[in-house]
Amino acid sequence: MSKILVFGHQNPDTDAIGAAIAFAHLQKELGKDTEAVALGAPSEETQYALDHFQLEAPRVVEKAGEATDVMLVDHNEFQQSIADIADVNILAVVDHHRIANFETANPLYYRAEPVGCTSTIVLKLYKEAEIDVPKQIAGIMLSAIISDTLLFKSPTCTKEDVNAATELAALAEVDLNEYGLAMLKAGTNLSDKSAETLLDLDAKSFPMGDKNVRIAQVNTVDLKEVFDRQAELETTMALENTKKGYDLFLLIATDILASNSELLVVGEPKEAVEAAFQTTLTNNRALLKGVVSRKKQVVPQLTEAFSN
Amino acid sequence: MSKILVFGHQNPDTDAIGAAIAFAHLQKELGKDTEAVALGAPSEETQYALDHFQLEAPRVVEKAGEATDVMLVDHNEFQQSIADIADVNILAVVDHHRIANFETANPLYYRAEPVGCTSTIVLKLYKEAEIDVPKQIAGIMLSAIISDTLLFKSPTCTKEDVNAATELAALAEVDLNEYGLAMLKAGTNLSDKSAETLLDLDAKSFPMGDKNVRIAQVNTVDLKEVFDRQAELETTMALENTKKGYDLFLLIATDILASNSELLVVGEPKEAVEAAFQTTLTNNRALLKGVVSRKKQVVPQLTEAFSN
Repeated sequence: MSKILVFGHQNPDTDAIGAAIAFAHLQKELGKDTEAVALGAPSEETQYALDHFQLEAPRVVEKAGEATDVMLVDHNEFQQSIADIADVNILAVVDHHRIANFETANPLYYRAEPVGCTSTIVLKLYKEAEIDVPKQIAGIMLSAIISDTLLFKSPTCTKEDVNAATELAALAEVDLNEYGLAMLKAGTNLSDKSAETLLDLDAKSFPMGDKNVRIAQVNTVDLKEVFDRQAELETTMALENTKKGYDLFLLIATDILASNSELLVVGEPKEAVEAAFQTTLTNNRALLKGVVSRKKQVVPQLTEAFSN
Repeated sequence: MSKILVFGHQNPDTDAIGAAIAFAHLQKELGKDTEAVALGAPSEETQYALDHFQLEAPRVVEKAGEATDVMLVDHNEFQQSIADIADVNILAVVDHHRIANFETANPLYYRAEPVGCTSTIVLKLYKEAEIDVPKQIAGIMLSAIISDTLLFKSPTCTKEDVNAATELAALAEVDLNEYGLAMLKAGTNLSDKSAETLLDLDAKSFPMGDKNVRIAQVNTVDLKEVFDRQAELETTMALENTKKGYDLFLLIATDILASNSELLVVGEPKEAVEAAFQTTLTNNRALLKGVVSRKKQVVPQLTEAFSN
């Protein structure tokens, strides 16, 4: 019999990979034959965290293939999941996003909470099951919380995330702030990446109204460095729209030190973007003051604008 | 500000009403301004349980109306929910069914487990929150577990349901088996009901393939009593199909003592029903040996048949 595959979303971020490793380990301790896998290679930020805690990157898969049973972490929407998600049996989901484009034929275990990071929920599951979190796994879970909450600066961050991170930092034996800043900075190295790679680092697709919207986000400590390449980025976004059938492509470049984002938009309808953020695009761009969270400060606002 | 409405599915059964009462009370203890309501009047079984534990039936509502925030128990599919479900903000779901036809714009609290009864999960939530279950509420939660698991005979019943029921029976100060049988029998009084009422007692709609399937279930201690009225039932089912746009109407009459069900089918495609249960309909009927659970022994099999 095949192992139960445990994985996060496509274009995995640190939580998609960290929560998969942590939840697969917990389920193994509970007697399930699980394997953490990933729907893509780790980002530089995630690789930094894996290296720091001496963990192997999970095997990259595109399809469940032989495996008939899967567990999802950090996502639920089918278009963000494994290619053959509609053909497998979903045993469990642990997530902290909206629920949409998701369905099962059978009852399942589904645990979602409106907190900043899936790994915060996974820590709760370890406690409920009275299983100890090993040091290395505590480290990757901590990294996931730092990544998702931008070191607690994101409006998605809750008290539970801060408490979980503090507890995990002690288990992982690192200084939370020092390690956190170093890890986030490791993920901001964009200069040596092609526009195509940069736009795919942390990108998700969302059906909104009858449109297909692609939203990519990159973290930076230097917005200017990103927008020096605006022309190249726009050309690539237009090309992706054509190739992949997106109607609208948004790039959110987030300044992790100032906690603002600069938006770049290619495609239509741009009015929906302007309505969502009550702004006017100039040269396809707009500064979004205080916006750092795609999940809380971008997707709901855009969804609302598309429903009007 | 309006209260947060907490409710189970349309045509409420004992779990839909019991879990709503129990979860609303828990949330109130946790500081939320909740009100348990119901999307229909209690069945005779549920009324027996409410009377036994001296609880008021929840107020019946059709729309959330003024209330903008809601919490769902014992269901998630929008077509089984409140009429204006798409216009309200879903804060939480506690359920034990498949997930389908459900979506939110925002992250939420979602707790589903593949156990026999929502009230079993709600008891776990009381424990996690370290809140005591009052005697009356323990009684209605116990009733919900007895109802959903047919006093532990349903294949949906898990060890967790049995443990929860045993614990709740002690809190409610009743003899589990004696009370359980009396309550189940109170729900089998079908003779004085019109065919229309009988078919609506515990009925749910499911989109399957491109068809709209209605599945009603009644409990009885005398299958003959139900099928003496076959002609009248068939006429009413055909009428409902026309009126409400169902393609296929299934009535599952469950003998709660023998743990079998007799199926009555009106509409098309009947081949899907025959394929799902590997049976041949005779006079629109088939005996389904050992089948007592719509959720586990009917819906997945039909869904599978419709996907082929």
